Amino acid sequence: MSSDDQIDLVFKALAAPIRRDLMDALKDNPQTTGELCARFDTLNRCTVMQHISVLEDAGLVIARKQGRQRWNCLNALPIKQIHDRWIGAYASGAVDLLARMESDMATVPADA
Amino acid sequence: MSSDDQIDLVFKALAAPIRRDLMDALKDNPQTTGELCARFDTLNRCTVMQHISVLEDAGLVIARKQGRQRWNCLNALPIKQIHDRWIGAYASGAVDLLARMESDMATVPADA
Repeated sequence: MSSDDQIDLVFKALAAPIRRDLMDALKDNPQTTGELCARFDTLNRCTVMQHISVLEDAGLVIARKQGRQRWNCLNALPIKQIHDRWIGAYASGAVDLLARMESDMATVPADA
Repeated sequence: MSSDDQIDLVFKALAAPIRRDLMDALKDNPQTTGELCARFDTLNRCTVMQHISVLEDAGLVIARKQGRQRWNCLNALPIKQIHDRWIGAYASGAVDLLARMESDMATVPADA
């Protein structure tokens, strides 16, 4: 799959509100598939699993099996890549500032 | 239009490689529609204008008329919102670090 095809998958995955809601649910903590199904109980289990699978194909969710449970984790890397592609230039200003502050700190005597 | 509908437009707009390429072209400088058409000369003018229009509807491009020219500018705000929605928590760690460094700098005597 080309890089463009992979990026297409990311945007297509995020173009549905339910999949963005699933991403929100995973933002703070990984969740088991059972927990996600209980949280989105207006949908049947099969539908929730299909949406998780679309997010997984796009690389936005990483799944790990632990015993009989399947833990789903948010992978923020594709989101970071979107950010860096179009606002990397702005962000680099902040990184420059941080680098200058670090270098200023390094010149301060340890006993100051 | 609901907020979810508006966000759908952003992701649908970005789900096509040609529209991502148009965003890349606008990243550093605004461009006139004529300049964009010249840059993407494998497509006819009408197709390029349709893609710009999809980006504009999604709020990713802002157009300004100046005389007979139409300047297209990248609007990074929807991209920032995507970032903040799913990696705001991670980023806040960096902001905390910056705040701590600033406060450390403030306690260093001016003649150190």
